[in-house]
Amino acid sequence: MTFEFTPLGVGAAIPIAGRHTSAHILNIQDQIYLIDCGEGTQMQLGRYAFRRSRIKQIFISHLHGDHVLGLIGLLTSYSLLGRDVPMQVFGPTGIKAFIEANLTHTHSYIPYELNIHELDPTIHSRIFENQAIEVFSFPLLHRVPTCGYLFREKQRPPRINIAALERYDIPKAAIRGIKMEGDDFTTEDGEIIPNATLTLPPYPSRSFAYCSDTAYNEALVPIIKGVDLLYHEATYLNRHYKQAEFSMHSTAQDAATIAKLAAVQQLLIGHYSSRYLHVDLLREEAQYIFPNTALALEGEVYKVPLERKPERIQ
Amino acid sequence: MTFEFTPLGVGAAIPIAGRHTSAHILNIQDQIYLIDCGEGTQMQLGRYAFRRSRIKQIFISHLHGDHVLGLIGLLTSYSLLGRDVPMQVFGPTGIKAFIEANLTHTHSYIPYELNIHELDPTIHSRIFENQAIEVFSFPLLHRVPTCGYLFREKQRPPRINIAALERYDIPKAAIRGIKMEGDDFTTEDGEIIPNATLTLPPYPSRSFAYCSDTAYNEALVPIIKGVDLLYHEATYLNRHYKQAEFSMHSTAQDAATIAKLAAVQQLLIGHYSSRYLHVDLLREEAQYIFPNTALALEGEVYKVPLERKPERIQ
Repeated sequence: MTFEFTPLGVGAAIPIAGRHTSAHILNIQDQIYLIDCGEGTQMQLGRYAFRRSRIKQIFISHLHGDHVLGLIGLLTSYSLLGRDVPMQVFGPTGIKAFIEANLTHTHSYIPYELNIHELDPTIHSRIFENQAIEVFSFPLLHRVPTCGYLFREKQRPPRINIAALERYDIPKAAIRGIKMEGDDFTTEDGEIIPNATLTLPPYPSRSFAYCSDTAYNEALVPIIKGVDLLYHEATYLNRHYKQAEFSMHSTAQDAATIAKLAAVQQLLIGHYSSRYLHVDLLREEAQYIFPNTALALEGEVYKVPLERKPERIQ
Repeated sequence: MTFEFTPLGVGAAIPIAGRHTSAHILNIQDQIYLIDCGEGTQMQLGRYAFRRSRIKQIFISHLHGDHVLGLIGLLTSYSLLGRDVPMQVFGPTGIKAFIEANLTHTHSYIPYELNIHELDPTIHSRIFENQAIEVFSFPLLHRVPTCGYLFREKQRPPRINIAALERYDIPKAAIRGIKMEGDDFTTEDGEIIPNATLTLPPYPSRSFAYCSDTAYNEALVPIIKGVDLLYHEATYLNRHYKQAEFSMHSTAQDAATIAKLAAVQQLLIGHYSSRYLHVDLLREEAQYIFPNTALALEGEVYKVPLERKPERIQ
């Protein structure tokens, strides 16, 4: 029951050695989702051994080049590779025109089904669901229309209580009904064993929120409240807060403050300005406010466990 | 007196591990020129320690994504880096609309002087010159309008004949006139030493031709006749000639045949199809026809010496 996040690009607008522009893979229950698609994403996918063909949904936060300039290369590589399964691309108003203009100008043709979902970047709404998850987009506060994304596992079926099954000698054939349909079980003696006796509560649904790019914005707090993992951009140190305000980015302190107000489980910061060759100070600044902060590093895997550690259960 | 070519991307349309899409640096007399700009070019420039700011001219062959999708990222990085010197971009009809559409859709602004020169891809003409070189574009035979490029050093001044200078005791102050203005020298006795005695012929002008992407096309032969270094795409082995014909690419045999007909000094092949994990067979196929063939490898430096080896002087 995988739930893990892998940054492919942790730099801000200007790529520097070893730091690519924004792109990330979120793996939930072995479905992988691409979040942002900066220049070089298709090469980064290869470097970290993600099969391009496994991606069926791409979520673009906004149309600044460092979040979207790898999209056309990826979509057209699929054409050349003979993709025949549909692709869904989500992004704010303008994403359709961006894709279509590039396909025209580069003489490209998409033979597979490409569904482009233009989102209203001013509203918070559910934009996607499948068997395992729901995805919501919500407004971020940036210089151009920008969507944040919230991924939330659906409520899962209860877990089977192995001890109870053995105690009541439940046949294997009955287990599916007990787990998936909420069935009670009637013994040969006519005793009814209630479903609640035979099951344990499901693992809690896990959640991930993506907030990049954005200025400090407390309006995010109720939307991302209590998520297990928050990726929040931290382009600058607080000492450069004027630059952050001017460019509508966040400082590490901003990101940590939002994480604290939203009482998230873990904060991951990224989107580091190229002015910082070393990013440890960004982590230190964030940890002063929100201790459970990690630095996003390219190719690292950040896992959300099935169960929160006891001391964190409210 | 540098004259060297460094591939940054030697793959064809689909980038694979360690093989990027087309981009190349040509360094002539310490001016560097970028030829094609596939996705990831700005990162490749960094990897091979080319300072982006040194590029003042970019030459795009055609608008297929694998030759142009790195251009917007590079041009907008210059904006963020505060570039204040002009940039010239050369490319076939459509390059201007491609750049302008992307700048609009990605909300980007270019504060420096960006001169986009749309070339007529059907004609052979001189498109650029500076103190050191002239550049010509010429038609390639591909599925979309495509320009090849020929770079040729201008005739250089004669070399000073050191032995003659010593024999006639020529003062240093006179050397510039002798070398650059063709001055004779009059000794204190009134003897006139003719310029031809004091100088040696200049080094021959060196030349480089870029032919990618193109089907086999003998019309190239008179245009690239005798160049010192020819980069000619060799996407396929001859055993896949039908695929080459269909996609209007060349086989290694095609590239070598053109090199032989044009009597170039050296052939460099590249733009390898992602179907070939090893490209030695491409070289072998080409060398069977044109022995002085090398494989383009990313980051390698292919030098054109000041003087051709004696056995190659016609």
